[in-house]
Amino acid sequence: MDEPQVAPPRTHRAGGGREAKRAARLARAATSVPYITRKVGVYEVLDEEGLATIERNADTILAEIGIDYRDDPEALDIWKKAGAEVDGTRVRCAPGMCRSIVTASAPHDFIQHARNPARSVAIGGKNTVFAPAYGSPFVRNLDEGRRYATIEDFRNFVKLAYMAPSLHHSGGTICEPVDLPVNKRHLDMVYSHIKYSDKAFMGSVTHPERAQDTVELAKIAFGDRYMDPVGGKPNTVIVSLINVNSPMTYDATMLGALKVYARANQACIVTPFILAGAMSPVTVAGTASQTLAEALAGMAFIQLLNPGAPLVFGSFASSLSMQSGAPTFGTPEPALVLYVMAELARRLGVPFRSGGSLCASKIPDAQAAFESAQTLLPTCLAGVNFVLHVAGWLEGGLAMGYEKFVMDVDQAGMMHTLLEGVDLSENGQAMDAIREVGPGKHFLGCAHTQANFETAFYRSPLADNNSYEQWDAEGGKDIAQRANAQWKKQLAEYVEPPLDPAVDEALLDFISRRKAAFPDSNV
Amino acid sequence: MDEPQVAPPRTHRAGGGREAKRAARLARAATSVPYITRKVGVYEVLDEEGLATIERNADTILAEIGIDYRDDPEALDIWKKAGAEVDGTRVRCAPGMCRSIVTASAPHDFIQHARNPARSVAIGGKNTVFAPAYGSPFVRNLDEGRRYATIEDFRNFVKLAYMAPSLHHSGGTICEPVDLPVNKRHLDMVYSHIKYSDKAFMGSVTHPERAQDTVELAKIAFGDRYMDPVGGKPNTVIVSLINVNSPMTYDATMLGALKVYARANQACIVTPFILAGAMSPVTVAGTASQTLAEALAGMAFIQLLNPGAPLVFGSFASSLSMQSGAPTFGTPEPALVLYVMAELARRLGVPFRSGGSLCASKIPDAQAAFESAQTLLPTCLAGVNFVLHVAGWLEGGLAMGYEKFVMDVDQAGMMHTLLEGVDLSENGQAMDAIREVGPGKHFLGCAHTQANFETAFYRSPLADNNSYEQWDAEGGKDIAQRANAQWKKQLAEYVEPPLDPAVDEALLDFISRRKAAFPDSNV
Repeated sequence: MDEPQVAPPRTHRAGGGREAKRAARLARAATSVPYITRKVGVYEVLDEEGLATIERNADTILAEIGIDYRDDPEALDIWKKAGAEVDGTRVRCAPGMCRSIVTASAPHDFIQHARNPARSVAIGGKNTVFAPAYGSPFVRNLDEGRRYATIEDFRNFVKLAYMAPSLHHSGGTICEPVDLPVNKRHLDMVYSHIKYSDKAFMGSVTHPERAQDTVELAKIAFGDRYMDPVGGKPNTVIVSLINVNSPMTYDATMLGALKVYARANQACIVTPFILAGAMSPVTVAGTASQTLAEALAGMAFIQLLNPGAPLVFGSFASSLSMQSGAPTFGTPEPALVLYVMAELARRLGVPFRSGGSLCASKIPDAQAAFESAQTLLPTCLAGVNFVLHVAGWLEGGLAMGYEKFVMDVDQAGMMHTLLEGVDLSENGQAMDAIREVGPGKHFLGCAHTQANFETAFYRSPLADNNSYEQWDAEGGKDIAQRANAQWKKQLAEYVEPPLDPAVDEALLDFISRRKAAFPDSNV
Repeated sequence: MDEPQVAPPRTHRAGGGREAKRAARLARAATSVPYITRKVGVYEVLDEEGLATIERNADTILAEIGIDYRDDPEALDIWKKAGAEVDGTRVRCAPGMCRSIVTASAPHDFIQHARNPARSVAIGGKNTVFAPAYGSPFVRNLDEGRRYATIEDFRNFVKLAYMAPSLHHSGGTICEPVDLPVNKRHLDMVYSHIKYSDKAFMGSVTHPERAQDTVELAKIAFGDRYMDPVGGKPNTVIVSLINVNSPMTYDATMLGALKVYARANQACIVTPFILAGAMSPVTVAGTASQTLAEALAGMAFIQLLNPGAPLVFGSFASSLSMQSGAPTFGTPEPALVLYVMAELARRLGVPFRSGGSLCASKIPDAQAAFESAQTLLPTCLAGVNFVLHVAGWLEGGLAMGYEKFVMDVDQAGMMHTLLEGVDLSENGQAMDAIREVGPGKHFLGCAHTQANFETAFYRSPLADNNSYEQWDAEGGKDIAQRANAQWKKQLAEYVEPPLDPAVDEALLDFISRRKAAFPDSNV
């Protein structure tokens, strides 16, 4: 696997004196890596025996119960030819069959190329890639409250994600631009990712034609870099989210998009989307077995379509409030599912997607933060490779929060430091400092502190660590109010990444031809 | 180690209909265990080689730099007799000496007896004990904002901790009752723990005489149960917090209290209290080596005083904001220190204290929650045995928050479920449910869900998981507003645990005699 290079640090304009120092500090803080390569180990909750039990149960589900592939005769045909037992729309695979198909050809990891090569991401292995939240019809900010999202919001979040040193990916449907027709908005979304960011992005999955449009736009954007001259296949430049209709069902929409992407050598994230208690049993082990079975079925199908096509094993699991029927987030059961699924993905040898900064709270309050942290930290410690929903998620995914977005970006920055682990170099051991200072003195002025203090600790741009008196004198703001000022400042300072005008013109030309080719529709 | 029994579930009065169901549910939710016994593994960030490096550096600190024992000639004398090199107030120990003294006699774990035997706690091994925050001069709530704490606040928090199923311990100086004289308030604090709770508690450490008062009150409270008739030594009924004056200094106040407790077979938590960058180097490894050295010195001193005396290896590490000099919490570096120290304590074979729900935020906003979660979850995954500051902490420990308290209790409840791990029983595997439901159906009504839904998922009493519309119709409250209603309701419903009137009288008699024996003072 070739290693993408570290992106060059972005610099900010510096004023004089104190402001210059602040700008210089921000510039250093903004030094970003294209993705995280974990230097610490993973946390695991099941041993060999427990994992084998889950795997055996998944095999039983695939062999005895089977998976439905609805409204897609081609899919049934492919499974029949592969040796599965097909009964109506139900497909049953002998124990071990799906696993063998996956392990025979699915890549252990792959590069998703970004428009800016320095921002290409390695998905799999010890790497973790952070992407913004996905799919909200609403947005929320302190000024306007909650309202439907527009393409302007979409562009804003692409810009904020581009500027966020701790987000490695531009994401996909960051929010639904409901001011645009359903059957054409994907063109504006994909264009926005290409135009306003140079990070890697995700494709449309709501119709096979929209998936094909995504591929065509990517061909224009990547030009000569779309095809890999060595392998003779397209480079992977799109990652897309294929949700399973749990329990145990794939529908024609998702299968249609999956087929377009898999055949074009673009990566699919096969994700059983489960609210445990409704779409799976109320237990962690039951949910894990079902998730594994469903994901294995989808991943094997991809390898049958195009052996060697890149893919990601996905798991989205929330538990259901048994009182209200609403999904809950940041509770311990989904965290346990996450740890188990990450272990199972490692055993299978494929990249894994899960987690994020999930919450049920409608506003960026302490509930949102507790729930988000109780999802993001397990995500990182479990060793998840691709993390959707890292920034902005509110209200079970129904709303994208502007303040929540920059708060989550800050937390994601902390995860970079955590996953760096402990520096055991001589400078890290700091015995010289301890010798210099000695009992009863302080370390503030010692040579080691002076040499290291600029980079010593993660610096949050949002946390207020000042004295109570100073905080009070500055208006006694909560973090959401500080976040409000920050996203506005960032949008005001945004500078577009360079894009070849000829490429831009070609993209716009393709889009206008496609938009003219059929009438607007909201289906 | 004898295993304290599971405390009986506390029941709530049930009304009719919907309210009855709710009360029954709360009663089940309130079923408490006396402490957590972890069924999952721990998370570790250093390997054998890294840990050996830290241990070697700690030995170097103890041998070459040494520890100061100030204003305590007896301590210097004890060290001299033990074979240490004493130079003025500086004590240097040969490499390995402190470790040998500790491992020769310090217990691997111990029971701290509670007034209610069903609430006695096992400290060490795979056990985790949660205690409220400690030491705040201020309190905060939504109604009054921030103000100085009083003995009434102290009693309130003892009551709230008593009622919290996820707190196992009554704590110590939950907040400073600044309306009482400094030299007598310990009597009221210890009395409040005994009177308003039946959970285990902590002793006064601000003066040797106040430590002795704590022991005397405990003797009265425990009566026949104070002495262990088998071992002929006092049972451990008090745990106390001995902070080291980092770097590398023990002062006479802390040494004085330590000596009283250690000689009475009561447990001390020896805790280097470190704001890295000021009291230790700016690096994780440097802070860990210094913490280990300081803690080893204190623990060895306890074993020299009374071989076999129970103790806890403590670590409190925050990093300093290098801009403002203020402590920061919930950042990645203190989490790394925490993981490292927990590993070192396990290698040493002694119980470990660290963590909590620490934050720098002044109010229970998203900053407070992010920071608290980013401390409490590492605390639990690291396998910390005694966790102070689990509930209420705000503003770097300067304020005790009423709303924060009940929010933290909720999070602590979730940790119970997390540390239970994955149920792999047949019911946990839930294959019958998956067989019954099959593809495309839902699990809500299936037999397995019906049989398990009451206990299936952790239920937060504070999180709002309702639809946006319902939440909005109910006033669009944030979690702090819901928490405000909850602590008031709990205080209104509080019922005192039974206390023998003769014991109560004896306690009050001791206290009034002590109070009359010397004038009030605020020193």
